[in-house]
Amino acid sequence: MKDRVYNFYAGPGALPLPVLERVHSEFFNYNNTGMSVMELSHRTDEIQHIIDDSGARIKRMMNLSDEFEVIFLQGGGSLQFLMVPMNLSHPGDKIDYIDTGYWAEKAIKAAKSLGRDLEIIAASGDRNHTYVPNSDSIQTRSEAKYLHLCTNNTVVGTQFHNFPKVPIPIVADMSSDFLSKAIDPSPCACIYAHAQKNVGLSGVTAVVIRKSILENSPDDLPELLDYRTHIERKSNYHTPPCFSIYVMWQILRWIEEDIGGVEAMEKINWQKSSALYDFIDATPLFDCPVEVESRSRMNVVFRLPTKSLEEQFIQEAFESGLVGVAGHRTQGGCRVSLYNAVTLDAVKNLIEFMDKFAQKTNY
Amino acid sequence: MKDRVYNFYAGPGALPLPVLERVHSEFFNYNNTGMSVMELSHRTDEIQHIIDDSGARIKRMMNLSDEFEVIFLQGGGSLQFLMVPMNLSHPGDKIDYIDTGYWAEKAIKAAKSLGRDLEIIAASGDRNHTYVPNSDSIQTRSEAKYLHLCTNNTVVGTQFHNFPKVPIPIVADMSSDFLSKAIDPSPCACIYAHAQKNVGLSGVTAVVIRKSILENSPDDLPELLDYRTHIERKSNYHTPPCFSIYVMWQILRWIEEDIGGVEAMEKINWQKSSALYDFIDATPLFDCPVEVESRSRMNVVFRLPTKSLEEQFIQEAFESGLVGVAGHRTQGGCRVSLYNAVTLDAVKNLIEFMDKFAQKTNY
Repeated sequence: MKDRVYNFYAGPGALPLPVLERVHSEFFNYNNTGMSVMELSHRTDEIQHIIDDSGARIKRMMNLSDEFEVIFLQGGGSLQFLMVPMNLSHPGDKIDYIDTGYWAEKAIKAAKSLGRDLEIIAASGDRNHTYVPNSDSIQTRSEAKYLHLCTNNTVVGTQFHNFPKVPIPIVADMSSDFLSKAIDPSPCACIYAHAQKNVGLSGVTAVVIRKSILENSPDDLPELLDYRTHIERKSNYHTPPCFSIYVMWQILRWIEEDIGGVEAMEKINWQKSSALYDFIDATPLFDCPVEVESRSRMNVVFRLPTKSLEEQFIQEAFESGLVGVAGHRTQGGCRVSLYNAVTLDAVKNLIEFMDKFAQKTNY
Repeated sequence: MKDRVYNFYAGPGALPLPVLERVHSEFFNYNNTGMSVMELSHRTDEIQHIIDDSGARIKRMMNLSDEFEVIFLQGGGSLQFLMVPMNLSHPGDKIDYIDTGYWAEKAIKAAKSLGRDLEIIAASGDRNHTYVPNSDSIQTRSEAKYLHLCTNNTVVGTQFHNFPKVPIPIVADMSSDFLSKAIDPSPCACIYAHAQKNVGLSGVTAVVIRKSILENSPDDLPELLDYRTHIERKSNYHTPPCFSIYVMWQILRWIEEDIGGVEAMEKINWQKSSALYDFIDATPLFDCPVEVESRSRMNVVFRLPTKSLEEQFIQEAFESGLVGVAGHRTQGGCRVSLYNAVTLDAVKNLIEFMDKFAQKTNY
C-alpha cells in the first residue's frame, strides 16, 4: 500500500500488514455471526474460542508445560507491577529486583508502595543503564520470594539474552520482547507482557503463571486482583478487552502459521537488528552507546554528534516516510524499534536513508 | 448490509453502523499518518487529541462544569469498584451503598474487601430486585463519605430515573446508561462507565470526577490506582487502550453530531423501549416482571409462560436474525438490550417477530 509509512514507534507501533488486511476483511461480519467481532458478547463461543486459542498458541510457542496457565488482563504492565507482589508475596516478605532503568524502576516503585522488603540486588545505573548485569553474577537473597527483571529495556536499548541462574523463581516483565524469540521458561514463576509491542494493540496484557506459586497467595486479595480468579474464569471474569485479544490472536496465528513460529521470528529479528547495528558501528556519524553483549534486538538506540543533527535526522527521516525514530523523551537521541511486525524491508530502507544522511553530512 | 443481524446483546453489543463504516474506511491510514490508528504511538498528537476531544465531548454532553475532570482507564467497572473506595475514603471510613442486585453487589463486595465501614442503606432484594428503591426515601448516614448506586441494572432490567436526593456526594456506576440520556450531574462526586454498552468497545472506562473530592484522598495509594495520576497525565500515564478510546470517540461524535446530542438520543431510547414495553404489556404471552416506574430504558427483561417456550423463542429469534435475546445466565428468561446503537428499526423487527410468535403459539 503505497500511502503507508515505515513505522518504528516504540509501541504501540507497527502491526503486520497481513493481519490488518484480515481484520479489515472480516470487519462487518465475523465468522458468519452477522456482526463485527467488536459487537460480539464476551459470553459467546466465538470470543471464548479466541481467548482459549490465544492461550494455547502462547503455550505452544513458549514451550510452556501444563504447570503454567496463560491469562489475559487489562491494566498493562503497570497493573502487573502491583499484581505480581500482591499475588506472589505477603506484606513484609523479601522480594528481589534488578534495576535496569526506567521500566524496571517503575516496577520497583509500585512493589515498594505495597510494603514489601524489596531489595535491588543488581543494577546498571553506574554506567547509565548502557548494559544489563551479567546473568551469572546475580546473587539473590535466600528467603526472597522471587527475582523480578525487565528482560528488554525499551528506553535504553538493552536486553537480557538469558535468564539469570538463581535459586529462586524468576518473574520476567517481557513486555517488549514477548514472543520475539524462543525461550526456556523453566526458571520462571511468572512472565507478563502487554501486547502493544510484539503482539498487538494496547489494552491487553498476557500473564503466564506457574500454578503452584499461587498456593501461597494471600487469601484477602480483592477478587479482581487475584490471579486465581482469572485462571478459574478463563480470562472471562469480567468483560475482557475482546477486540485487543482478537487482534493479538490474529498476530499469534501470523507468527505461528505465516512466519513459522518463534524460532523463525527470532531469526528475522536478529537479521533486522544485526543489519542496523553493523551499519551503525561502521558509520562514524552514528554511535550506539550500549555495550555489545547487552544490545537489544528490539530497540536500537543511537546518537548523532550534536542535538541539532539529531533533530535534523529525525525530521528528514519523517519526511522520507520513516516514522518514530526519536529517542524516549527522558533520553533524547534516536531510537528505532524493530518489533515482530517491522519488516526487513523497513530496516533496509532505514539503513539506506541513514547512509545517504551520513554521506550528505560528511561524517 | 444484508448479511448483518439485529444485535440485542447486553454488552459488548451493537455499534452504530455509520461508526463501523468510518473506522473501516480509515483503517489503513488514519488522518494521513500513513498508518492505522492502531499503530500510532500513544505519545502522538493524534492519540492525545482523540483522548482530549473525547473528554471535551463528554463534558459538553453531560453538562459537566470545570469542577469535573474526565479520565479514561482500563480495568472496567470492576476496577472502579476498588478505585472508588480507595480514592474517596480511608480505611475504616463510613461509605453507603444501595443494593439493586448483581452489579451493585459486586461493587459492595469489592469495597468491603478494602476494610471500610460499608452499610447497605437501601436494597431491593425483598422483591427479587424487580424495582429500585424510591429515590426520595433514601437516608444516608451523616458521616458517610459517599453514596454508591448502580443507575441501570442490566441483569434485572431496572433503572434509577433520578439521582436520590441525599446530603452526601453520589457515586454513580452508569456503565449501562452512560450518555443514553441527559442528566444533571450536580449531586455527583464521581460517575463511571465502561464503554461497551452505549459508547463502544470493552477495554476502556470513562471516569468523571469532581476534583475537590480528591483533596481528601489517601496519600499512600499506588500511583496507578490514584485518580490524581491520571488527571495530571491526561489519561496518558501509561499506554492507554488507544483503539478502544478511538472507537468511543467516533461514537461520541456520532451521538453529538449525527444524532444531535443526548437529549435526542434519550428521545430515541424512550421510543424504542416504550414500543417494546407497550407491546409486552398488551400481549399475554409475554410478561415483564419489573415494576413500571423502575423499568430500564436500556435492558428490557421479560418472561414467557414456560422454560421450553422461552428456549423456543430465543432459538427462533436467533434463526430470524434477532441475536442476543436470552436473559442473564443467573436469571434465565429473556432480555433485550436497547443501547444507543440499537435502532428503532431493530426494535420494530423484534416486535414484529414477537407478535408472530405470540399468534403462532396461541397465547
